[in-house]
Amino acid sequence: MKIDVAIVMGSKSDWEVMKNCASLLKEFAIDCESRVLSAHRTPHELAEWLMELHRQKVKIIIAAAGMAAHLGGVIASHTLVPVIGVPMDAGSLHGMDALLSMVQMPPGIPVATMGIGKPGAINAALFAAQILSLNNPELVHKLENYRKKQAEKVLNEKLD
Amino acid sequence: MKIDVAIVMGSKSDWEVMKNCASLLKEFAIDCESRVLSAHRTPHELAEWLMELHRQKVKIIIAAAGMAAHLGGVIASHTLVPVIGVPMDAGSLHGMDALLSMVQMPPGIPVATMGIGKPGAINAALFAAQILSLNNPELVHKLENYRKKQAEKVLNEKLD
Amino acid sequence: MKIDVAIVMGSKSDWEVMKNCASLLKEFAIDCESRVLSAHRTPHELAEWLMELHRQKVKIIIAAAGMAAHLGGVIASHTLVPVIGVPMDAGSLHGMDALLSMVQMPPGIPVATMGIGKPGAINAALFAAQILSLNNPELVHKLENYRKKQAEKVLNEKLD
Amino acid sequence: MKIDVAIVMGSKSDWEVMKNCASLLKEFAIDCESRVLSAHRTPHELAEWLMELHRQKVKIIIAAAGMAAHLGGVIASHTLVPVIGVPMDAGSLHGMDALLSMVQMPPGIPVATMGIGKPGAINAALFAAQILSLNNPELVHKLENYRKKQAEKVLNEKLD
Amino acid sequence: MKIDVAIVMGSKSDWEVMKNCASLLKEFAIDCESRVLSAHRTPHELAEWLMELHRQKVKIIIAAAGMAAHLGGVIASHTLVPVIGVPMDAGSLHGMDALLSMVQMPPGIPVATMGIGKPGAINAALFAAQILSLNNPELVHKLENYRKKQAEKVLNEKLD
Amino acid sequence: MKIDVAIVMGSKSDWEVMKNCASLLKEFAIDCESRVLSAHRTPHELAEWLMELHRQKVKIIIAAAGMAAHLGGVIASHTLVPVIGVPMDAGSLHGMDALLSMVQMPPGIPVATMGIGKPGAINAALFAAQILSLNNPELVHKLENYRKKQAEKVLNEKLD
Amino acid sequence: MKIDVAIVMGSKSDWEVMKNCASLLKEFAIDCESRVLSAHRTPHELAEWLMELHRQKVKIIIAAAGMAAHLGGVIASHTLVPVIGVPMDAGSLHGMDALLSMVQMPPGIPVATMGIGKPGAINAALFAAQILSLNNPELVHKLENYRKKQAEKVLNEKLD
Amino acid sequence: MKIDVAIVMGSKSDWEVMKNCASLLKEFAIDCESRVLSAHRTPHELAEWLMELHRQKVKIIIAAAGMAAHLGGVIASHTLVPVIGVPMDAGSLHGMDALLSMVQMPPGIPVATMGIGKPGAINAALFAAQILSLNNPELVHKLENYRKKQAEKVLNEKLD
Repeated sequence: MKIDVAIVMGSKSDWEVMKNCASLLKEFAIDCESRVLSAHRTPHELAEWLMELHRQKVKIIIAAAGMAAHLGGVIASHTLVPVIGVPMDAGSLHGMDALLSMVQMPPGIPVATMGIGKPGAINAALFAAQILSLNNPELVHKLENYRKKQAEKVLNEKLD
Repeated sequence: MKIDVAIVMGSKSDWEVMKNCASLLKEFAIDCESRVLSAHRTPHELAEWLMELHRQKVKIIIAAAGMAAHLGGVIASHTLVPVIGVPMDAGSLHGMDALLSMVQMPPGIPVATMGIGKPGAINAALFAAQILSLNNPELVHKLENYRKKQAEKVLNEKLD
Repeated sequence: MKIDVAIVMGSKSDWEVMKNCASLLKEFAIDCESRVLSAHRTPHELAEWLMELHRQKVKIIIAAAGMAAHLGGVIASHTLVPVIGVPMDAGSLHGMDALLSMVQMPPGIPVATMGIGKPGAINAALFAAQILSLNNPELVHKLENYRKKQAEKVLNEKLD
Repeated sequence: MKIDVAIVMGSKSDWEVMKNCASLLKEFAIDCESRVLSAHRTPHELAEWLMELHRQKVKIIIAAAGMAAHLGGVIASHTLVPVIGVPMDAGSLHGMDALLSMVQMPPGIPVATMGIGKPGAINAALFAAQILSLNNPELVHKLENYRKKQAEKVLNEKLD
Repeated sequence: MKIDVAIVMGSKSDWEVMKNCASLLKEFAIDCESRVLSAHRTPHELAEWLMELHRQKVKIIIAAAGMAAHLGGVIASHTLVPVIGVPMDAGSLHGMDALLSMVQMPPGIPVATMGIGKPGAINAALFAAQILSLNNPELVHKLENYRKKQAEKVLNEKLD
Repeated sequence: MKIDVAIVMGSKSDWEVMKNCASLLKEFAIDCESRVLSAHRTPHELAEWLMELHRQKVKIIIAAAGMAAHLGGVIASHTLVPVIGVPMDAGSLHGMDALLSMVQMPPGIPVATMGIGKPGAINAALFAAQILSLNNPELVHKLENYRKKQAEKVLNEKLD
Repeated sequence: MKIDVAIVMGSKSDWEVMKNCASLLKEFAIDCESRVLSAHRTPHELAEWLMELHRQKVKIIIAAAGMAAHLGGVIASHTLVPVIGVPMDAGSLHGMDALLSMVQMPPGIPVATMGIGKPGAINAALFAAQILSLNNPELVHKLENYRKKQAEKVLNEKLD
Repeated sequence: MKIDVAIVMGSKSDWEVMKNCASLLKEFAIDCESRVLSAHRTPHELAEWLMELHRQKVKIIIAAAGMAAHLGGVIASHTLVPVIGVPMDAGSLHGMDALLSMVQMPPGIPVATMGIGKPGAINAALFAAQILSLNNPELVHKLENYRKKQAEKVLNEKLD
């Protein structure tokens, strides 16, 4: 099986948010696989899955985690494909901890960070599609359509 | 002239930090151009430059700005190529304002955000290289070397 | 049609809050129009509307947005009329992101920022009225009455 | 003497920042007066000065203060002319306290808040000029020139 | 009528919290009056009430307010009796704005600040009682009893 | 020896700031003693000193500490005299940790908290004087003079 | 009775969270006792209990508290056994105050701090078990099993 | 060679702070080794070193890192010995990012977190000594002496 984009989240509870990411990738007909794997609780299985992903020529990995969100950074340290991080709004600090744990990566190992929660989940899918569209004119077309519909939706809003 | 990566910053004072980004791209032999343009003070010239960049088939745009850092978001709204944001540590809030102004993009228009300041500037170059390496095996090789040297540097540290 | 004050918000979900602004302007008999337009999703329509507003001699623009709230700044970069920003309490950070994205504008392009959410929406209407009252004695009178009623309401509060 | 804009600051130490505001107003040939007065230490003199300002038909008041910055709010409660607040970066919290003490005004008494420190001081002058320009075509012209020069300055930046 | 402690709050909605303060003062048989008055919306009535309180030899004033909470600072600037501030958890920032607007008073005019919300309301009453107890041995006795009961309550807690 | 106000600080490094408190109390001729004692490193000596202070009929205790500033709370749990807390700007968080560790006392044991650093140190002295002035008309007079001089100092500021 | 680990919390309301800690210790068959005691409201009983715990050769103390959470620091100042702190999500600041009040202990008296709320309560139990396992091979085995089950739980998650 | 405590830091620049930790362990005659290893840049060498440490029966690992500080969490996921985290004050956010990246570990994998910077480095050494002292009466004695000296140092402070 071919996988272009892999989505991994640290806890099943993140799926409620991250399925917005998966369904958008699907809408763009991008081959994608979603998994629950923890940087801390399943480090070996995570490493194995990353090797498997490389065999499948994965192009982008999207990592979602809450609190001290190490998942993106740990994955990024094992791979050279672009890693996109989505901080989850979990625990008492509303995702500010996850945001800083992802975005403030020290120099050398980047994690491209999106906003906290659902907006970030959607944007992660779009950003992945934008990367893939660099070599896929059809995807450019789909993204243009997506933006067009998005704009139309805004323009059609009626204020009562 | 061909440009793969464009770097734009909101103020010349950002160059001290962003030249770390430019020099790293150069080290990877990635065609790159750096400009000062402001989302607020030169919106028209920014839009024109973006069109020029598209004619030159730019693949990635890196935007650096401080304070209420709109530059990344404004560029992202005009283009479908991946936009990477680097929040600058400017003004009284040490870049927290710029970070939130970049990373918290509403759903639909992603800006892939790096850490504040120099670490983010370096990571922006690496992330751009990682994207380009998806279709450039030589760049994969260079990135592997970079990581190897990075690791060696860490391993050679002596504590007095 | 003459428009003295234009209200624009980044998402229809902001209307629940911003209609407090619109109804207060109406109470002061100030000509006003409310629109949903996004700095990121509908940049061209936003620019067009701004030109239309200028033809109608708009005097003040009130911009409400949440998260990385660029709407006020983007509008301010296209116009010389006073722009008032109202940060919305949207997403995981309760409007702190929107506040900083609006108020921390770099020097050159001001956005006069009000408080987060409903209090800010009400104050935006009052501040617009205060600006217009500089050349409208009747409006001064209305604002005096509003303050008087406000004070009476406070003074009539009974603690059980 | 005629005063269009009054600048008041809570401490002489704010003048280093606020003279950027005063000199910009002067550059626009706007009649302006600057004073040190404290909401807490000189409440009566502040009230008297406000009455004097009203006699002189002041049109806009710019208030700069640090820490628990009440100056803008106290002035706004005594006047119907637009009050612009500039939070100062004073004390241990780098102006975040002053920002929240100004911008989070409860509904009824608006303070139009600018960014922390020098950028806010400059923007306060520009915003005041924008308000006054609603009835002063010459000022519109000056603001257009200011923006033009600002843009040229950005466009002329050379990266070494 | 004699008033030892005056409680003033910026909005009737604060009463739900501040009645915990009033009832505790009553429990200590401390003469007390509670009022809704706003530093911004009723500055003149506030000043008049403060004069009335001074005629009644008020000894302590407790001020509760939310958001940009200026009430405590404004009162403190008009009086030499101790002013205790209680920041309310109102608006989007959960009282952090009110806390900083009260506690970060510039040098010269102190506001003794308690914690945010109900804990602060209770502690304001206790602190007022502690001040009054310096010249009231009976009140010392009551406070000792209060602490004793408090301790007993803790010691009698059973964990299931 | 009679002591009206005791100043205690958690570290000698706090003295640079707290001597502003001590010298102001001295200026008001208030009997005062200053000590370095740590809630954590010298809990027994702190408890003993508190007992000694009670024998000397101390009326107010001012506690200054940085970081996880428990000093005020620990003292307050051992005494019924008013405890005033001054958060120090020490360590990496600029006193925000000390502020929250003092002001957010749970219900039952109040610590009257002043601002961070030198402004708080000065205000602690003034607040102590205000408490003592409730039974000391001479002190009222001194406080009035202090405010008068303070106001004069503000009014005499010249802006160059 | 022998007690290896003592759990103490500042308020009964913390038990809902901390029973996750107690039940996990029980699951590991670690002798443990849970108590409600307040650093501020019951300082003497706390000191007595600590002496009793030392007679019983307690090895680890887990302290949970919210707001200005001094409990861990106060205990740590009276004992040489390791003290683990768990900040509770209580009051308006969602545990950020408790976190800083625990973790930012000045040099000399450490409190090993866990995350806010339930995750921290669980981790406190695990960390205590890890310490005890240094001399208890059976406990090592139990911890290995716990991790294994934890990993299996993650690996068995199915995304719908 | 026997190692009881291993210190690992993410960057050589952390050594300036962490040598305070190492020298204190040495003062207690605790066998200790210090290394620079990065969770992100040298993940394999880190894993190998951890295995080597286990062969040497390491008892405690102290991990220091700044920014998105994953080092402690990554180590904790590979070992059952207690891991102590020390957040470094590096980059623009003064260690708040590192603190949250360490302390907010999700349930299952604890990292016992100390304060930011030098105070945390010292406390990490003390906490490690406290753990080891559970089976080392001589170390108890040394810790008692350390506390005694610490107290004497406080008690001998003279205020000028």
